[in-house]
Amino acid sequence: MTSPSELRKDPVSGRWVIIASERSKRPDDFRPAKPIERPSVPSAFCPFCAGNEAKTPPEIFTLSGPADGPGSPPWRVRLVPNKFPAVSRGDAPARVRRGLFESMPGIGVHEVVIESPDHGREMADLPEDHIRDILATYQARLRSIEAEPQYAYTQLFKNKGVEAGASLSHPHTQIVALPIIPKQVKEEIFRSERFHRRTGDCLFCRTVAEELDAVERIVLKNAHFAAVEPFASRFPFETRIFPLRHAPFFSAAGLEEIAALAGMLSAVLTKMKSLLADPSYNLVLHQSPNPAHARRLWPEFEQISHWYLEIIPVLTHVAGFEWGTGLYINPMVPESAAKFLRD
Amino acid sequence: MTSPSELRKDPVSGRWVIIASERSKRPDDFRPAKPIERPSVPSAFCPFCAGNEAKTPPEIFTLSGPADGPGSPPWRVRLVPNKFPAVSRGDAPARVRRGLFESMPGIGVHEVVIESPDHGREMADLPEDHIRDILATYQARLRSIEAEPQYAYTQLFKNKGVEAGASLSHPHTQIVALPIIPKQVKEEIFRSERFHRRTGDCLFCRTVAEELDAVERIVLKNAHFAAVEPFASRFPFETRIFPLRHAPFFSAAGLEEIAALAGMLSAVLTKMKSLLADPSYNLVLHQSPNPAHARRLWPEFEQISHWYLEIIPVLTHVAGFEWGTGLYINPMVPESAAKFLRD
Repeated sequence: MTSPSELRKDPVSGRWVIIASERSKRPDDFRPAKPIERPSVPSAFCPFCAGNEAKTPPEIFTLSGPADGPGSPPWRVRLVPNKFPAVSRGDAPARVRRGLFESMPGIGVHEVVIESPDHGREMADLPEDHIRDILATYQARLRSIEAEPQYAYTQLFKNKGVEAGASLSHPHTQIVALPIIPKQVKEEIFRSERFHRRTGDCLFCRTVAEELDAVERIVLKNAHFAAVEPFASRFPFETRIFPLRHAPFFSAAGLEEIAALAGMLSAVLTKMKSLLADPSYNLVLHQSPNPAHARRLWPEFEQISHWYLEIIPVLTHVAGFEWGTGLYINPMVPESAAKFLRD
Repeated sequence: MTSPSELRKDPVSGRWVIIASERSKRPDDFRPAKPIERPSVPSAFCPFCAGNEAKTPPEIFTLSGPADGPGSPPWRVRLVPNKFPAVSRGDAPARVRRGLFESMPGIGVHEVVIESPDHGREMADLPEDHIRDILATYQARLRSIEAEPQYAYTQLFKNKGVEAGASLSHPHTQIVALPIIPKQVKEEIFRSERFHRRTGDCLFCRTVAEELDAVERIVLKNAHFAAVEPFASRFPFETRIFPLRHAPFFSAAGLEEIAALAGMLSAVLTKMKSLLADPSYNLVLHQSPNPAHARRLWPEFEQISHWYLEIIPVLTHVAGFEWGTGLYINPMVPESAAKFLRD
């Protein structure tokens, strides 16, 4: 008997997944949940809406210019400190150790990019030139934080919808800088370093090249980017957008690349919105730790780290098997997911 | 300014978390979701209910005996193969490699422990002697699978509620045996091995001893077990139940220990059910890889691995920051969680 499922290993992270499409046929006796409603009208309460600017901490950056919506709001993209930060600015923290228990103060940066003044328009609904402005805002801010020597790693991410961890429905993105390089980020670069030592190539560049050769998991491709359902996808419709040009930092992408990325993001998010019934999702930037810290661990970090975006629609729940093993069971074959999004 | 948050490192897994209690004060403009309803009456459809035994594959094991409910159902605990398995029995699989893409057939075991014939009674609602019978069923089956040489690691877990990944509401537990040792499991034992080499002690025994000394994160303690909100909890009310006696496998716990564990599980689950509004949760067993495979990697594996149970109530959502960094932001200080569950 051949097994109806397959274990696959992700070349980038080294993590195994179980692709088990038979699992999608299992019965379900829970009544479907009522979708969580997202208020689509600006409320007096929403701190991210035009007119409520005083409800956020003073802004760090504003992009103004001809607005694309009716009524001409006073700004297009706004960047503010997070009012309820996970980490806060301060001096490089000292680690405290009491027996086995190690801790340090939560020093860092936590900021919010308000993507547009319009409460009801998600990134998928915005015109490409507005998405370009959002991406340019990300870049400007990341460039500046990446140069601050006390922060080791900067994480940009977007949570859309309650199931993806959002607490406010007005479209926004978050930037968090940390005093440490997370273990998971280190591991990916250590893998890439070993591969580079063995082959002279970047592991990410090679993965993209092999995905392009295999064709079947590619969703979209343009002159600068490829959108792929990874070989070892953990979740149905998990999508990675890889830049074709090798580069460790998103903030270094050129104008033409940003325009191409805006087009690809718009296309992928629009497909997901219409084909997957407007799912909650996470958008996650993967890139090198900040230069001063990366160089200390990997003198040749510029050759071995390669940024990419990950989009994870929230269609399943993390369960006990995943918490115990770190392995994900994916009921959707990534080749089928790519075909579905493509056609 | 002192930071309102703290980074903490888990001594067992080596993973950092951010404890940020200020985050719990942030506003939320989503209307609360209607709770997902769980049918509490046995349905003609439910394959796990008494009377529907023919709807599952033939049973592997049945525990009969005087039933504790009215109507005397024909069995107390039943063990069956999973009808929609993530992995299936077969010979030790060969790895297939095409360029960077590595895979192998999904060989393994996937079984279901039906915890009682009663559709509407969760583990928290069962009498202690019935929980003891469930635990004894786990043990009997694990003991047998752990001895099968083609499987490297066995994961026991329970998903209660849709948000915890369950698809059937009838209370059940799953057992999955895998042909590989998951990376996350290996890492924990490698850390323990390094600690043992340095100190001569078991990392888990030492962690428990330091938690008992610290007192403030202990929820419950009896002669054989301690229930702890870990120092670096990823989630609000994440709870670990540690055996006080060093042992690599749950299946080797004695009768008296199983009785003590049934009492502690009943107490913790009852507290969670009443104090946290009957949350969805995952129950996860952590233990040594199967002996033949563990011995190959760590000749002294019996000294360095130490089983424990983890209970994760699903009260928050995994968000983009967690997917990018592997770090969890926990809005609840574990010391407060322990106090709340204790009092």
